[in-house]
Amino acid sequence: MKILIIGAGGMVGQKLVYKLLEPNFNAFNIDEICLFDLYLPKYKDTRIRRVIGTVENSEILKEFSSERFGLIFYLASVVSGEAEENFEKGWNVNLFSMWNFLSALKVEHLNSSRKYIPKVIFTSSIAVFGSPFPDKIDDEFLCSPQTSYGAQKASIEILISDFSRKGFINGISLRLPTICVRPGTPNKATSGFFSNIIREPLNGKKAYLPVDPSVRHWHASPRSAVNFLIHAVSLETFQLENRRSLNLPGVSCTVEEQIESLRSIAGQKAVDLIVPKKDLSIQNMVKGWPKNFSHLKASQLGFKSENNFNEIIKIFIEDDLN
Amino acid sequence: MKILIIGAGGMVGQKLVYKLLEPNFNAFNIDEICLFDLYLPKYKDTRIRRVIGTVENSEILKEFSSERFGLIFYLASVVSGEAEENFEKGWNVNLFSMWNFLSALKVEHLNSSRKYIPKVIFTSSIAVFGSPFPDKIDDEFLCSPQTSYGAQKASIEILISDFSRKGFINGISLRLPTICVRPGTPNKATSGFFSNIIREPLNGKKAYLPVDPSVRHWHASPRSAVNFLIHAVSLETFQLENRRSLNLPGVSCTVEEQIESLRSIAGQKAVDLIVPKKDLSIQNMVKGWPKNFSHLKASQLGFKSENNFNEIIKIFIEDDLN
Repeated sequence: MKILIIGAGGMVGQKLVYKLLEPNFNAFNIDEICLFDLYLPKYKDTRIRRVIGTVENSEILKEFSSERFGLIFYLASVVSGEAEENFEKGWNVNLFSMWNFLSALKVEHLNSSRKYIPKVIFTSSIAVFGSPFPDKIDDEFLCSPQTSYGAQKASIEILISDFSRKGFINGISLRLPTICVRPGTPNKATSGFFSNIIREPLNGKKAYLPVDPSVRHWHASPRSAVNFLIHAVSLETFQLENRRSLNLPGVSCTVEEQIESLRSIAGQKAVDLIVPKKDLSIQNMVKGWPKNFSHLKASQLGFKSENNFNEIIKIFIEDDLN
Repeated sequence: MKILIIGAGGMVGQKLVYKLLEPNFNAFNIDEICLFDLYLPKYKDTRIRRVIGTVENSEILKEFSSERFGLIFYLASVVSGEAEENFEKGWNVNLFSMWNFLSALKVEHLNSSRKYIPKVIFTSSIAVFGSPFPDKIDDEFLCSPQTSYGAQKASIEILISDFSRKGFINGISLRLPTICVRPGTPNKATSGFFSNIIREPLNGKKAYLPVDPSVRHWHASPRSAVNFLIHAVSLETFQLENRRSLNLPGVSCTVEEQIESLRSIAGQKAVDLIVPKKDLSIQNMVKGWPKNFSHLKASQLGFKSENNFNEIIKIFIEDDLN
């Protein structure tokens, strides 16, 4: 099988590549993994092909379509903070690039005698939901994004669903929880602080907390994110019952509970490195974010996450802490 | 006030124009009504300006933006049957023209020292919903369109909401029930038969019924549609509570109940003109359409429709039957 990963240079993308290259990973019988992003690390595995570029280049997207990858992970995205700052860029890169890509896949599907219906796994987000909402969001709750990033994810979900319904692709949108603990340096995602307050203290560094500790949010580890992506490949259309966008499992906890987990694992010394520093604009954005999900359907379909925040910290220590 | 009606040549558009021109209608203190469509009837009122063209022409949309209409009704749409037949055309005319128009309005908003935030009333549709759904859809139920037309309407709703949240426009999307009884000749809307089986017999003509009489659906009269559009203008942003897409009131009834209403008003002779002629493709599309709504929020906001199908037929006889 030939696999294409668009946005393979991001944090989840890199972890997905490592997972696919693990010696004992043999789910897909992989011939080639083509990686596409603005930046990509190097890999020694001969099945890897690296292509540097941007999804704003519709010609490259057309070339990819003509290569007929059987499985496509679409992870590329302008992140939430940047999409909010730069309205044009957010809509162009997030929505219109996806439109161009899906249209190119459709042309390939229609123009050939040899049937082509690629599986497309798209990383959506819980940012498709907006307040007011119930404490626990169920599988039938409406999308009403209150950020441009969420609006772009929700629009793409609709495209993926309609292109799939017409039979041009076989797509699924995974509404990832906020991925925590993110390794590396902070990016422009507004949700970054949920990771910063764990990662930085575990590295002996200070971290700023811009919101009240009572803020409740919805998390899963990077390891779970990769498992979600891989599990989604195995799903059959009939299992989805006309719903190609899934709320995934995760851990609902407050910032205070996150800090308690940190204390229980790394002690008061780590917790002392968290410095409260209110940021009203972040506090206001976070107010419109979901707190908890029932995720009945995704669980029935076999998706699994961590059970509590302690597990999330332990996975960070195992997988990413130097 | 200067008003722009995009899609003014359609059935609802024409009725809206007539309403605005009524001698005793003085809600908006109208200086000008600019009508835009592929086809437009002529009007004697000097406040009317007619512009013939298509929303696919983004230059015209830019010119309209620079004219700073205070109130814009956006009714233009490729209808459901055509959007399903011609995938490219549906997405281009419905979604991308709206994107071009909203972007032009945003440029006007940002480029000037004199504040410009037009009110935009968009006619969405209950086609944003797709099965499986409950018998009665509430205000918080998810959009999961099962037609391209519905997917396009749902995508536009997201755009309208995000452009409004950023303050570029002040938009509302009205999810109109199926408008019934449509006057004139049938168009390519798949839902046309709901009107045909009433209008044609009342005109002494045969009408074909492509679905089972047990099919239940959601209706409102053209007169209600116009009233919805005008009532929406008066709503303030704070009343919407972050939800700019509204499920409107209507009448839930089966085709059988429609036929009973026809019988009670026009007798068995009229009913005898309805000829059952199953069409599987229509039957399958209609299966995915909503049956009933709770419309709590819209009712609280003052939107009103008919109470039963008899009233809907009587309005057709009063307003449209020759």
